[in-house]
Amino acid sequence: METEGYYFYRFGEPETLTPTKFAPPRKVQPAEGAPAKFPANACGFTLLKRGCRVQIPIGPEEEIYGFGLQLKGFACRGQKKALRPNADPVANSGDSHAPVPFLVSTGGYGIFIDTARYAEISCGVQRNDAAVAKQADQGVMTDVNELYRIREAVGVSDLILDIPAAKGIDLYVFEGQTITDIVAQYNLFSGGGCLPPYWGLGILYRCNAGWSAGDILQFAKGLREDAIPCDTIGLEPGWHTRSYSCSFVWSPERFPDPEGFLREMQREHFHVNLWEHAFTHPESPIHDALRPYSGDYLVWGGLVPDFSLREAREIFGGHHKQLIAQGVSGFKLDECDGSDYTGSWSFPNSTLFPSGLEGDQMHSLFGTLYMQTLMEALGAQGTLSEVRNAGALAASYPFVLYSDLYAHSDFIRGLCTAGFSGLLWAPEVRDAASKEDLIRRVQSVIFSPQAIINAWYCGQAPWVDWDAKAEIQRLFQLRMQLLPYLYTAFYRYATEGVAPVRAVVSDYTYDREVRGIDDAYLFGDAMLVAPLLAGQKERKVYLPAGEWYDFWTKEKVAAGWHTVATENIPVYVKSGTMLPLAKPVPFVGDETVFALRFECYGPAGGCRLADDIEERLLEVSFECGKVNWPGDSKRYHCEEVEFF
Amino acid sequence: METEGYYFYRFGEPETLTPTKFAPPRKVQPAEGAPAKFPANACGFTLLKRGCRVQIPIGPEEEIYGFGLQLKGFACRGQKKALRPNADPVANSGDSHAPVPFLVSTGGYGIFIDTARYAEISCGVQRNDAAVAKQADQGVMTDVNELYRIREAVGVSDLILDIPAAKGIDLYVFEGQTITDIVAQYNLFSGGGCLPPYWGLGILYRCNAGWSAGDILQFAKGLREDAIPCDTIGLEPGWHTRSYSCSFVWSPERFPDPEGFLREMQREHFHVNLWEHAFTHPESPIHDALRPYSGDYLVWGGLVPDFSLREAREIFGGHHKQLIAQGVSGFKLDECDGSDYTGSWSFPNSTLFPSGLEGDQMHSLFGTLYMQTLMEALGAQGTLSEVRNAGALAASYPFVLYSDLYAHSDFIRGLCTAGFSGLLWAPEVRDAASKEDLIRRVQSVIFSPQAIINAWYCGQAPWVDWDAKAEIQRLFQLRMQLLPYLYTAFYRYATEGVAPVRAVVSDYTYDREVRGIDDAYLFGDAMLVAPLLAGQKERKVYLPAGEWYDFWTKEKVAAGWHTVATENIPVYVKSGTMLPLAKPVPFVGDETVFALRFECYGPAGGCRLADDIEERLLEVSFECGKVNWPGDSKRYHCEEVEFF
Repeated sequence: METEGYYFYRFGEPETLTPTKFAPPRKVQPAEGAPAKFPANACGFTLLKRGCRVQIPIGPEEEIYGFGLQLKGFACRGQKKALRPNADPVANSGDSHAPVPFLVSTGGYGIFIDTARYAEISCGVQRNDAAVAKQADQGVMTDVNELYRIREAVGVSDLILDIPAAKGIDLYVFEGQTITDIVAQYNLFSGGGCLPPYWGLGILYRCNAGWSAGDILQFAKGLREDAIPCDTIGLEPGWHTRSYSCSFVWSPERFPDPEGFLREMQREHFHVNLWEHAFTHPESPIHDALRPYSGDYLVWGGLVPDFSLREAREIFGGHHKQLIAQGVSGFKLDECDGSDYTGSWSFPNSTLFPSGLEGDQMHSLFGTLYMQTLMEALGAQGTLSEVRNAGALAASYPFVLYSDLYAHSDFIRGLCTAGFSGLLWAPEVRDAASKEDLIRRVQSVIFSPQAIINAWYCGQAPWVDWDAKAEIQRLFQLRMQLLPYLYTAFYRYATEGVAPVRAVVSDYTYDREVRGIDDAYLFGDAMLVAPLLAGQKERKVYLPAGEWYDFWTKEKVAAGWHTVATENIPVYVKSGTMLPLAKPVPFVGDETVFALRFECYGPAGGCRLADDIEERLLEVSFECGKVNWPGDSKRYHCEEVEFF
Repeated sequence: METEGYYFYRFGEPETLTPTKFAPPRKVQPAEGAPAKFPANACGFTLLKRGCRVQIPIGPEEEIYGFGLQLKGFACRGQKKALRPNADPVANSGDSHAPVPFLVSTGGYGIFIDTARYAEISCGVQRNDAAVAKQADQGVMTDVNELYRIREAVGVSDLILDIPAAKGIDLYVFEGQTITDIVAQYNLFSGGGCLPPYWGLGILYRCNAGWSAGDILQFAKGLREDAIPCDTIGLEPGWHTRSYSCSFVWSPERFPDPEGFLREMQREHFHVNLWEHAFTHPESPIHDALRPYSGDYLVWGGLVPDFSLREAREIFGGHHKQLIAQGVSGFKLDECDGSDYTGSWSFPNSTLFPSGLEGDQMHSLFGTLYMQTLMEALGAQGTLSEVRNAGALAASYPFVLYSDLYAHSDFIRGLCTAGFSGLLWAPEVRDAASKEDLIRRVQSVIFSPQAIINAWYCGQAPWVDWDAKAEIQRLFQLRMQLLPYLYTAFYRYATEGVAPVRAVVSDYTYDREVRGIDDAYLFGDAMLVAPLLAGQKERKVYLPAGEWYDFWTKEKVAAGWHTVATENIPVYVKSGTMLPLAKPVPFVGDETVFALRFECYGPAGGCRLADDIEERLLEVSFECGKVNWPGDSKRYHCEEVEFF
């Protein structure tokens, strides 16, 4: 990294209720001196009646990425992003489950915009005061796409930060060599990335919403009998007495003995994760206490807790502590995003909260404050849970984003975009249109932060529908093989801020070929994954400079573009990699020891292994067919080494 | 009507740059006394940091309509509408080519919200301070649509007006018996509906964008030879030297002699309408003069004129006067809406204009101010032109809305919604997926404010593609037959404010069956039109209380629901109607006399006929087989009478 730390710029008089006010302690300090790349002195600031704007000149070659999870768009030059949390973003408008006011530029800097308003960022607009340049005559067009495609700006272009309601804005600027460097500093500024427990990285299966304790136990035991790996079972709305809005009380019909159920699940080595949203039903035991600490409008008849208040967090979290004490290991925080495209079910942007937060601000902060509340309740107990909204400075929360949308290509794009802003995203698998579709989807979900099958509306496991048990079992086992590698990538996320899953352009920022690649991504530091979709007979894969190996055939593959056709998911390993593959286990226990087979690619290299039991980092290396192994630890046993 | 006039309410300190500041003179006065239905005393007002909000309690049975042209939604209860002008609204979010801050309630009132900001209106949200009501247990749901469908509010519900940026808001409230009454008063408040010239209601054909003067003359003469009626020929971008952005200068290659071309078109009795947008290319002769009166960001390299300034209107309009003097009869004002879903090509919401208007305000006002500018240039010359954005108080401008979208069902929904807010909309016909699709689309466009074929990207007329000349000719002739009826409906629009095309619920506000009908509409006062779509073998049609006649078979049809299957477009005529059908003419000249055949439905009734030459209204009636005809006028000759 070139620089360390952040540069701070205040324009006008910013609001007080902004993401930094609610954020975890920073793990990065202010930088010294002036930024080398961010054009601080050329920025304009205008106070508007509608809020304020910052104008930042950008070069003609500069590309912009970021803005949180973006399923419908990738490279942002020439586009406008409106950062509205929304359940079902329908177009490339910036709307997202998890929009984040953070952007990175290939110019070598990133900007965190400290606002909870729905900022609109225009990524390259030509000024009226620019010198008038001649445009090429484009002739007469008779196609709408042709008319509206983005035309290259010919004069000075601005990156415009349009902040509604605020009379000023604080910017935090990070600089770095690559996007990965820049984002890592933003993540450290956010408190560092999360480090989930080992078992959180195993398979998560969410059961049909209507299943009872008996149904679930039977299913879970069946997984063990069938040797299908699984660490966590998710319960959907049916565990509640009331679910739209929520009671947070076990249904006596479906779960007459919750403690007994949870004990039996633990005996089978399953963690249990509970679905909920925050909207609190009148019949919930916490309703009356929570009411004064809630917004002045309801959602589905339920209270909207003001999680920015200690009182609300204690009432809500206090009740959840009871569930955790019973043996629950995590929660799926649904519907904390917003609703502009799906029936407007959420609270209005003009809702008033007792803290003084307004509805739009609360929408931007809601998922993050909700996660905070649950993390306080979980205390020392680790989790890798799920959430449908996250916002600014959320890297440290062990929650993975998901969506009701389902286009596989959009889901893969999410794996490329989420990492730009300290977010985790999983392309969850629900049902499938064909056996091929099921397999292609599971292939990509196992190469993601969370290996999740969400069968909440399915009568049986999707692999039963498609007679694909053997294939899915093999893929789940591959996930289990990858755990030491993935866990160590998360360790790097926590300590250095480097996202475990990220776009190719993040590491290879100066390779112009990768600027638009939104269908392939880096999985950890050593693997490039290029999923195929159902119906896709072949695809193009680009490998950046360096030497690569096909993960499946172990053949060397040159840098550059390739056309690939395979029933496997195309995965490439960087030369110099020492891949620690574990012998698959059905679940990760506290005392599980991973038997490792190291795959050594190229003439020399190494890897690190984070041991969560001993709380230390093992450094391993190889050269000329020899391995330097520091000796077995409580978590890792070296069993085999192969060289390619 | 129960009341006449408007009630005015000021909350807080409103902004100064609002729609009323730029509106035509009102044709309705303040009402006396207090409103009978609008709950003025129960409204809440809150000043927010983000702007302000007004809370209006609404009854459990109250339904809400309005918000301008809405292609994706109809009845609004339980929904949120964000009033953002947008080129391609993708969902039922309020986004629209032409959003209008006006709503009507079945409670008997309408509210005009005087703001140019993107107001967000929540149509029924339950308050936290409501008495907690028991909800029915809905069981466990396993379907997303089921989860997110709108649940009936159980406590007090609010209509929430959320106005960003403003510290106060003026509301103008109208009361009436039916929605039609209420909207009529809003339209009169807007200056009254437009009255286009007679020829404007004939057929409008827009030619391929690349055609030259010679191509167009040849095509136009072909229409005359083929006896296909047509009054107006539209020229698309190719008439300019530059079109993205625009030069407003005739292309010397395609139109070497514009005056000669226009003269020859006039000799053939064609009016000529020119496509443009307002974004002014550096090569335009008005560019340099316009530059200081434009926004501080460009669109497609072109200036964005600040049409709220007299200087900009005079420079822009002055140049257009030259085109009008050459013989041009109207303009198609494209791309004056906005872009959140199609590549963000328009100016940012934070753009600053020399008048002090900000980008979001300008987006809300842009189409309307653009129409004003062109109307000033047109002076006494009438037109029925086109526009892609209109906003508040726009009833008096003779411009019809259109869209690049093309779902036929959405286009018909537009015919239902536009009339709630003083707007005109045409479901333009471009190409077709089949002969049936072409015919179904033309059937609905001739029963709309503007009978337009927009073949801007088609190599030949769409009826040639599908060998449907005879069918299309008959439909165009039907349009020409309907002109006296339609022109008189427009006369009522201008004088009484009653929209010529409107939803069934507008007239039949207290019939619960019609509240959701967004696929049938009233065409004038006497006809109910229920279009069929391609592939639709039959459809349900609901006829409100009263007696009806099938327009095609002349059979009496009872009120209530019917299943209809026909190759014609289902049209029903109210008993008591005297339908003045003209003998079709190929075009409407200044001295055209319509030879009328009156179709008299039921035992007694009548009609009115607006004569634009004599500037008088003819009152006609029939009873027991006898007709009371006041004698032929310069425009109308009574030739035949039939009784059914």
